[in-house]
Amino acid sequence: MPQTACHTEPQHLCMPEDARKRAARRLNIARGHLESIVRMLDDPDAYCVDVLRQIKAVQGALSGAGEVVLRGHLQAHVATAAQRGDSEEIIEELMEALKYT
Amino acid sequence: MPQTACHTEPQHLCMPEDARKRAARRLNIARGHLESIVRMLDDPDAYCVDVLRQIKAVQGALSGAGEVVLRGHLQAHVATAAQRGDSEEIIEELMEALKYT
Amino acid sequence: MPQTACHTEPQHLCMPEDARKRAARRLNIARGHLESIVRMLDDPDAYCVDVLRQIKAVQGALSGAGEVVLRGHLQAHVATAAQRGDSEEIIEELMEALKYT
Amino acid sequence: MPQTACHTEPQHLCMPEDARKRAARRLNIARGHLESIVRMLDDPDAYCVDVLRQIKAVQGALSGAGEVVLRGHLQAHVATAAQRGDSEEIIEELMEALKYT
Repeated sequence: MPQTACHTEPQHLCMPEDARKRAARRLNIARGHLESIVRMLDDPDAYCVDVLRQIKAVQGALSGAGEVVLRGHLQAHVATAAQRGDSEEIIEELMEALKYT
Repeated sequence: MPQTACHTEPQHLCMPEDARKRAARRLNIARGHLESIVRMLDDPDAYCVDVLRQIKAVQGALSGAGEVVLRGHLQAHVATAAQRGDSEEIIEELMEALKYT
Repeated sequence: MPQTACHTEPQHLCMPEDARKRAARRLNIARGHLESIVRMLDDPDAYCVDVLRQIKAVQGALSGAGEVVLRGHLQAHVATAAQRGDSEEIIEELMEALKYT
Repeated sequence: MPQTACHTEPQHLCMPEDARKRAARRLNIARGHLESIVRMLDDPDAYCVDVLRQIKAVQGALSGAGEVVLRGHLQAHVATAAQRGDSEEIIEELMEALKYT
């Protein structure tokens, strides 16, 4: 189990390495995209709808990164919750985090 | 009318300066936040749900920036569309851009 | 202008008839779909993910109806706001209503 | 385990009864709300922004019902997936269903 290798205390779960690296890669791309929108806004000729579209594109990229993280969490921590005996806590925590979509 | 001052050809509308600067400021903050999530993911102890929450926070910031841009667009370009006579085009364009929320 | 025909006082804008009828038609279909989900939930064999998918489908239908209403509003009331002189109020009102997406 | 009591074949998981009843109750309320919006649209004086707000309110109610279903699914089927040995399938299925938010 990947989480047993990395946690420092028994109660601490941590992210599967693969999800961590893939999420970082995607967020880095989103960061670059965001930088390019900030530069685009230096131009007095920038057009609102173009900016809106670019912002939506970055939001889509962040959703994609969020999906990677969520899938890793479900696999490594939620699917194993009944075995660990902490289903209730881990599900409440996740529902809370998903709320602010 | 701010858009007459900045466009280079009569058909080209551009963003009100105030919205442009405020959106840039907000996107810059979101970019910094995104960088900190990427750094957070360097830590093998990073926890999925913490990362999810941070991603949501950045998405919230992007929505805020999008709102600034949308409000500026409605004010400068949509509210004046009947006067310019391009209501239909400008509304289709906006509806299209809003779709990918 | 459709709104002048139907309002009872000069300050009262109302929905373009076409948008009103199309939105009603779509919401009626969504209502029927929702009824069928409620019936589906009478069956002890109902499966969570099927129900989730059906709920999402209804949410998509409501978004479609919302788009019809929004497009009608932009056309009939927002695009004409500079002519009426109430851009600021009408845009704040709309931004407020869009917030709870 | 509630799912073993209700399924007719071993591979078929079904919804926890409590979630099923609570979701039905909420969807029924949403259906009533939707009916009242359809009636509201019979009135030629209906105002776009009021209709938009009502549609958002129903979308909020559907999200609430979706949350009930999702929480029940996580508890009854996802948290027990490693024990059953179908984590991968059940997570892909859920990620797919969540996508269309």
